[in-house]
Amino acid sequence: MSKTGDVAIVGMSGLAGETLLNVLDEHEFAFGRIHLLDTEDRAGGRPMLKGQSQRVEVLERFDFTQVAVVLFADAELATGWAERAVKAGCLVVDGCGAFRGEADVPLVVAEVNPQALEGVRARGVVSCPDAQVVQTLIALQPLVAEAGLQSVTVATYQSMSTVGGEEVEALALQTGRLLNGQPPEKGAFDKQAAFNLIPRIGELDESGSSTAEVRLAEDIRRILQLPQLPVSATCVLVPTFFGSAQVMQVRTRDALPAKRAATLLRKAPGVKLLDRPSAGGYPTPVADATGTDQVWVGRLRQDSLDPVSVSMWLVSDNLRKGVALNALAVADLLIKGHL
Amino acid sequence: MSKTGDVAIVGMSGLAGETLLNVLDEHEFAFGRIHLLDTEDRAGGRPMLKGQSQRVEVLERFDFTQVAVVLFADAELATGWAERAVKAGCLVVDGCGAFRGEADVPLVVAEVNPQALEGVRARGVVSCPDAQVVQTLIALQPLVAEAGLQSVTVATYQSMSTVGGEEVEALALQTGRLLNGQPPEKGAFDKQAAFNLIPRIGELDESGSSTAEVRLAEDIRRILQLPQLPVSATCVLVPTFFGSAQVMQVRTRDALPAKRAATLLRKAPGVKLLDRPSAGGYPTPVADATGTDQVWVGRLRQDSLDPVSVSMWLVSDNLRKGVALNALAVADLLIKGHL
Repeated sequence: MSKTGDVAIVGMSGLAGETLLNVLDEHEFAFGRIHLLDTEDRAGGRPMLKGQSQRVEVLERFDFTQVAVVLFADAELATGWAERAVKAGCLVVDGCGAFRGEADVPLVVAEVNPQALEGVRARGVVSCPDAQVVQTLIALQPLVAEAGLQSVTVATYQSMSTVGGEEVEALALQTGRLLNGQPPEKGAFDKQAAFNLIPRIGELDESGSSTAEVRLAEDIRRILQLPQLPVSATCVLVPTFFGSAQVMQVRTRDALPAKRAATLLRKAPGVKLLDRPSAGGYPTPVADATGTDQVWVGRLRQDSLDPVSVSMWLVSDNLRKGVALNALAVADLLIKGHL
Repeated sequence: MSKTGDVAIVGMSGLAGETLLNVLDEHEFAFGRIHLLDTEDRAGGRPMLKGQSQRVEVLERFDFTQVAVVLFADAELATGWAERAVKAGCLVVDGCGAFRGEADVPLVVAEVNPQALEGVRARGVVSCPDAQVVQTLIALQPLVAEAGLQSVTVATYQSMSTVGGEEVEALALQTGRLLNGQPPEKGAFDKQAAFNLIPRIGELDESGSSTAEVRLAEDIRRILQLPQLPVSATCVLVPTFFGSAQVMQVRTRDALPAKRAATLLRKAPGVKLLDRPSAGGYPTPVADATGTDQVWVGRLRQDSLDPVSVSMWLVSDNLRKGVALNALAVADLLIKGHL
């Protein structure tokens, strides 16, 4: 059996794994046979895929020479198993950011910098940035291509699922307890998360920036190949379950009227512009973005600070658009272009 | 009986009225006798104040010549009754923004521009800006006094109580229904508010700015007396009940290192700086600001965009600090200074 186009997906039990399955089920990719893998204690499930029951195989006993591409949906498993997959001749898609900081691993958003996939040859690994970076770049890229870029300011409104499954559960538990007049249990948090706002994601560095903020700035600079780009980022966790959202000001190099920005975004791949009062006026995570394949842009307007600045609101389904679709699109590009 | 120092507070049944009562109970003001008033259908209650049961008198039958200052906690009642109070010789404190847009009515934050109270003579009315403006200015003022100001960028994270009591109830109802697997009822909203984000407060004008954003920019400019100040504001409703919060970038005229900004804010009236990991690291609405009299500042750092820019996170109890305390402090200043 030829391994051309055959793919393994590793880590089916988390939120990312579940979402990958849903996206695989609904979309067509250039994949041959798809192997679903998880560790011995979590394998054995039989999820449905394209109308057929599919076995989750045991990672520890899997022969990687059977497949061309291995996509990891779990950072711990990627760290432990990516090298073995590469040694077996596979290309690895790190869908969970385990390798995102490594200089010889390209960081790719399928719509934005597919050309960076060439770099996969160095280590056999390509990494995908996190959902907030994917969303930011999908909206930024068409504007930057036309008018250049001087700086970006971002304030995020991130759901619990952008940080982890434990936080999703803690929000549900705390909310239920509070509505029943019981004290909330902090769970995964330092401070109550339900009906509250947590303005720090990760640890602070010496400059006072959080892990999430440093990562956002670094990954934007890297993917746009603008190493000196000033990025002002503030990352805030809000009491929602799903979705990533942000307010963003984009200061371009050349003048970019908001009307022209709207035209560019309306044509951009992966973007849905919702900016007319008649069409609902503004996109929200639950009512609009959840379950969709687009980065939704709304509230697009000239920023009053500067004639070369536009301000906007972005929202997308972080697990689906930010993680699963991008990782699968990258795997798809590898299968189509490099094998 | 002398009316010197005697005060009437009108509109006791809303969230603002309740909070005014709490603040009156806990603080000392230079007031003589305090009359609590509401419309005939809502009067008659007997709330406790300083250990004594107090009758809520009927507004329609009240003789305003008994008091020196009338504080309105309800915009509809202010619109209907302020003129009559003025004709009876009273000074009116509009604590609910009913007169905020009128050029001959001063707009005052007690810690920031008490000198503007002089302007009360024109109409007999002084207005208080909304909670987001109060919070912004209390943190801005000490920085502006030292280093001037070029521009301000704000992204808000506003609780339901910043827009109204109906929205507070709708969030509770929707949240409960969703946790019980029932479809949420939209109530006061166009789109589901529970576990969601609403990036538009009020209606959009021709430039694409919402009512809340226009008001925030106008009131900042007016109170700082910087009519040309560029303000980039995006106002977002988040699924919390109480508190106003915001990310803010302040671009000063002169260089202002973050350390110096911290020193200024630590000394500023009405500000609580919480920026050390050892002390909890960052302020949140529920765990820190609620029930307190300060604007909490955290995540203070040099903004990477510009050497004269600092970035910070602000949060305060919108009803208590943003509305009740400011309105009562303004009434207090009128009683002390002008009668």
